[in-house]
Amino acid sequence: MTSDFSQYTLGYDIPALPGMKVEEVQTPALIVDLDAFDHNLLKMRDEIAKYGVRHRAHCKMHKSAEIAKLQMEQGHACGVCCQKVSEAETLARAGITDIMVSNEVCDPYKIDRLAQLPKLGVRILVCTDNLPNIAALSEAAVKQGTELEVLVELDCGGSRCGVADSAAVLELATAIIAAPNLRFAGIQSYQGAAQHAYEYADRKALMDTAITITKDAVDLLESKEIHCDIVGGGGTGSYPFEAASGVFNELQCGSYLFMDADYRRVKDKDGQYLPAFEHALFLLTSIMSTDIDGQAVCDAGLKAHSIDTGPPEVFERPDLQSLDYSDEHGVLKDPQNTLKINDKIKLVPGHCDPTCNLHDWYVGVRGGVVETLWHVTARGKFY
Amino acid sequence: MTSDFSQYTLGYDIPALPGMKVEEVQTPALIVDLDAFDHNLLKMRDEIAKYGVRHRAHCKMHKSAEIAKLQMEQGHACGVCCQKVSEAETLARAGITDIMVSNEVCDPYKIDRLAQLPKLGVRILVCTDNLPNIAALSEAAVKQGTELEVLVELDCGGSRCGVADSAAVLELATAIIAAPNLRFAGIQSYQGAAQHAYEYADRKALMDTAITITKDAVDLLESKEIHCDIVGGGGTGSYPFEAASGVFNELQCGSYLFMDADYRRVKDKDGQYLPAFEHALFLLTSIMSTDIDGQAVCDAGLKAHSIDTGPPEVFERPDLQSLDYSDEHGVLKDPQNTLKINDKIKLVPGHCDPTCNLHDWYVGVRGGVVETLWHVTARGKFY
Repeated sequence: MTSDFSQYTLGYDIPALPGMKVEEVQTPALIVDLDAFDHNLLKMRDEIAKYGVRHRAHCKMHKSAEIAKLQMEQGHACGVCCQKVSEAETLARAGITDIMVSNEVCDPYKIDRLAQLPKLGVRILVCTDNLPNIAALSEAAVKQGTELEVLVELDCGGSRCGVADSAAVLELATAIIAAPNLRFAGIQSYQGAAQHAYEYADRKALMDTAITITKDAVDLLESKEIHCDIVGGGGTGSYPFEAASGVFNELQCGSYLFMDADYRRVKDKDGQYLPAFEHALFLLTSIMSTDIDGQAVCDAGLKAHSIDTGPPEVFERPDLQSLDYSDEHGVLKDPQNTLKINDKIKLVPGHCDPTCNLHDWYVGVRGGVVETLWHVTARGKFY
Repeated sequence: MTSDFSQYTLGYDIPALPGMKVEEVQTPALIVDLDAFDHNLLKMRDEIAKYGVRHRAHCKMHKSAEIAKLQMEQGHACGVCCQKVSEAETLARAGITDIMVSNEVCDPYKIDRLAQLPKLGVRILVCTDNLPNIAALSEAAVKQGTELEVLVELDCGGSRCGVADSAAVLELATAIIAAPNLRFAGIQSYQGAAQHAYEYADRKALMDTAITITKDAVDLLESKEIHCDIVGGGGTGSYPFEAASGVFNELQCGSYLFMDADYRRVKDKDGQYLPAFEHALFLLTSIMSTDIDGQAVCDAGLKAHSIDTGPPEVFERPDLQSLDYSDEHGVLKDPQNTLKINDKIKLVPGHCDPTCNLHDWYVGVRGGVVETLWHVTARGKFY
């Protein structure tokens, strides 16, 4: 995995170059512990083999075509998910050939762009939750002379998008089957609220309901001889439930690859963290001011990480406490005044998805040395 | 102000093209109401004329070289501020000739890059709060054969960076004056905590203290015949205090130009919002699901706006309420079920600075038509 980075200027548009020591990386920068990354990648490969389900890796988290390829080639993912047409375009242009937009696409221009993508030799799947949308998808596919595979999104408890019940699933599936240039692909049933329910009992209750709702819809379709190629859902916090349900056949995990501070709070039934995934993503930051006793200021603020699920955690430094973040600064409590200017520390981001979207590069590190850089290919692709 | 946008693909890497109707803009997108923008730009020009102070416009908010030029040419700003070396590089390459990094620069490689910038014919100013940093700045300027202008940052109550008192200011000013290739430029004294103190009395108390601390330092330097060319500070929430103080001579406002939901909460002594700045920045978003009664889902999530100061407000739609935001979705309460799929609404971002940094473009709109697009030139430049 060697690339040419000569077109980039260090410190202006790239934070590091292969061969540099981690201490020389320009901060703030996202670094990936490649040993932990490999562990997580192969752990999920083993998990899907154990449960006998497919994994359609969710790229909304990392937004990197290079990482998506690793998930398919080494992690045995059957394809990828993303949330936006411009993400799908980015992934298709980078050579990914099996892409689901696990979201509704409603804007006419976006639908037209989506319908063009199969011309690149890419299998394109998309979700829907209403009849006029099915008509619009069909019209665009006919116009472009392509085929779109369409899943009905079912609201299994997340209360966001998706139809309310099995009867509505049947109605929409029937419409998809009847619509020119569309192919019915199955049911999308993602319980977002279950992912971050920290306690096992709460998560189990949400997932029991979600699985019951989903099974009812699958059964109703089967009774009408409509087969679901895909019954998809599941994230890092909930996937063992979907995988063991006998109802779902495709998982859509994303965060397992990097992990974040919030997912570390999700516990299994023994009160331990559920799956054996490791923190692989860190925000490397440098100390830039120590004038106040018991405090150090670092160079990572709100433009370098998202605090929507709380502040980041300081990695393996229990003597330090993450206090406050403004646009370009982070304030750390350092009671023993151990930090000095230009010292580097590693923060575990509170929430990996919106944090990754702030960066253009992942700096892959092994043994304290930069081994590679991966581009955040779909950074800012939210159209 | 006409540019060539033909290198960009609509909906992939640019959200709109000049001449489009606002309803056709690909969402989520930041749109700028150009009438409100012009009002804010000229209002600040009038404010600095009224108070007889300079304005060094803070580009950390908008990160756009095109907007920085408008602030200097039409808004009579004397120069600009930014927070990072890579921002300064971006602005210098775009032709801005008077740039202050209103922050400490400590990393040796970053210092070296900063010391190269005057070779582009740019006046470069930077802040410091410790003696070893002054030595490092001097060494780099000598090596590059350039001059850096250096301000001592004083902690006037923000408890972040900056020296603690006037004696330390004098010590550092003396060191700057003695250091080869450095020029002492004055004092940086920014009270960040005062900007968002909503109540006038709270803000006044913070600013009274800040001004007293700053005046003491200026007076001590004057007593030693050390003159401050610049006594800089002030933001959109506090600037009338600095401007009227007789101590400060350069303001550093940023948010006045766009305004956000949080700044709208800052009140003057009559309980009204302080200065007559208008909301000029909006996040345009499209409705993408309405399956749940009393609720609509829009396509603007955490990757399109920052909620660190709270959720965005729905502009001029009191019937709608901003509820919850996940990575790619926003959930709105719509009790009367008025919203339909593909309807567009305008959100006022909770906090403009980290929101702007998520986007590559501002879509300038007047009379419902896209007039121009401005590039967020320094988006992601946090090195």
